[in-house]
Amino acid sequence: MPFARIYKLYFSPDREYVRKLKNLLGFVPGNVHLYKMAFRHKSVAVTIKEGAKNSNERLEFLGDAVLGSVVAELLFKKYPYKDEGFLTEMRSKIVSRANLNQLSRKLGFNELIQFDARMISFPNKQGSLLGDAFEALVGAVYLDRGYVFTKSFLLNRIIKPHVDIHLLEQTETNFKSRLIEWCQHTGKEIVFRQTDNPEGESSKMFSIEAVVDGVVCGLGRDFNKKSAEKSAAEKACEFLKILEVE
Amino acid sequence: MPFARIYKLYFSPDREYVRKLKNLLGFVPGNVHLYKMAFRHKSVAVTIKEGAKNSNERLEFLGDAVLGSVVAELLFKKYPYKDEGFLTEMRSKIVSRANLNQLSRKLGFNELIQFDARMISFPNKQGSLLGDAFEALVGAVYLDRGYVFTKSFLLNRIIKPHVDIHLLEQTETNFKSRLIEWCQHTGKEIVFRQTDNPEGESSKMFSIEAVVDGVVCGLGRDFNKKSAEKSAAEKACEFLKILEVE
Repeated sequence: MPFARIYKLYFSPDREYVRKLKNLLGFVPGNVHLYKMAFRHKSVAVTIKEGAKNSNERLEFLGDAVLGSVVAELLFKKYPYKDEGFLTEMRSKIVSRANLNQLSRKLGFNELIQFDARMISFPNKQGSLLGDAFEALVGAVYLDRGYVFTKSFLLNRIIKPHVDIHLLEQTETNFKSRLIEWCQHTGKEIVFRQTDNPEGESSKMFSIEAVVDGVVCGLGRDFNKKSAEKSAAEKACEFLKILEVE
Repeated sequence: MPFARIYKLYFSPDREYVRKLKNLLGFVPGNVHLYKMAFRHKSVAVTIKEGAKNSNERLEFLGDAVLGSVVAELLFKKYPYKDEGFLTEMRSKIVSRANLNQLSRKLGFNELIQFDARMISFPNKQGSLLGDAFEALVGAVYLDRGYVFTKSFLLNRIIKPHVDIHLLEQTETNFKSRLIEWCQHTGKEIVFRQTDNPEGESSKMFSIEAVVDGVVCGLGRDFNKKSAEKSAAEKACEFLKILEVE
């Protein structure tokens, strides 16, 4: 064990934190500050320079990209005969906020995340906070250890033990029923309405509006009506910020 | 020069192709088949197994992710005091179809792309074909040489010499004017219309519909009216498949 790791684990002022990280991640972090930043929500961040904050949002941007790349390769190799539509959909499921929130909780990241306690009263916000921290952590590991290490960390420590890819393959993200349930729950009226196509556009296309309480909240367009509805429902879920069921 | 490279450049049946690749990319490829696949458009692909085609679409999926990750790190480090919103926008500009098409053409990839000649009559389609091949090439380089090599190839051979990041920083992707121009050009009427918020939603939010010839084509929502319009215009450009100006 090199000197730096011994120092970090047993003598540094951060030793408690380093040990906690080692237990959660399975390795001794190099630059502890990166990890602290990854777990710092913007609600408790301070401005450091020129309006930039020391929150985890920039690391989340980086980690999201690295995670996307690692998962893309995993799927590319796991499914050699599936087309890019399937691969894209599978990746969305794996890196969905719901899935990342769940992973973050399973891995115990909730113990490390710093956030303003007043946020607890907004369960939805707190939910996305976990997944955001997960992505930020990936960014921190990447900066600390590089791509090859991060890939092996994600695959062997996180995805293989905690993500059931075959189960996700069978799960269909049904935005239409999710939207309908949400409307029932909140007492709103939901109608799927077919509209005209813009003039000059192919008449084989269906344009569908998802209308919630008289307001168009999502538009879908496809060669068959069902797919257009599905897409309208997906857009409406996004528009209305209806979070994934967890 | 190891034996495999000498063989590939001077003796293999693919030697002409390998030399062309070496001239374009600056290195001798390992697995030539990956590169051939990267430049094979689906219009000339054949089904290889279980409905899977030997076109570049799967490689494009992988390359898109790897490129996204490399560009994310570049921006993360180049702009240490910019927030994730800025980084996201800059990345969109760098990896936009218009930019990748242009890069692909500059680098001479058009000479290598195989596609059905009947597509030439659709300039837009041919346009996106160049950018798609660029992403697929990134996927091929990644599988052939790994992340570290791909990153250095992209940064040193492509981005630094061919992408003017500071110029892109100043360019504003103005979806609203693009939409308006397109409508003028095609003789359609465009109206931005403010709608009610769904009941129970914050009344501080503006909801704007971009209505083209009476059809709602995009919805935007934001705390200020201008941003909501911008977002509605962006959605409408996507919905109407108004391609980027090249």
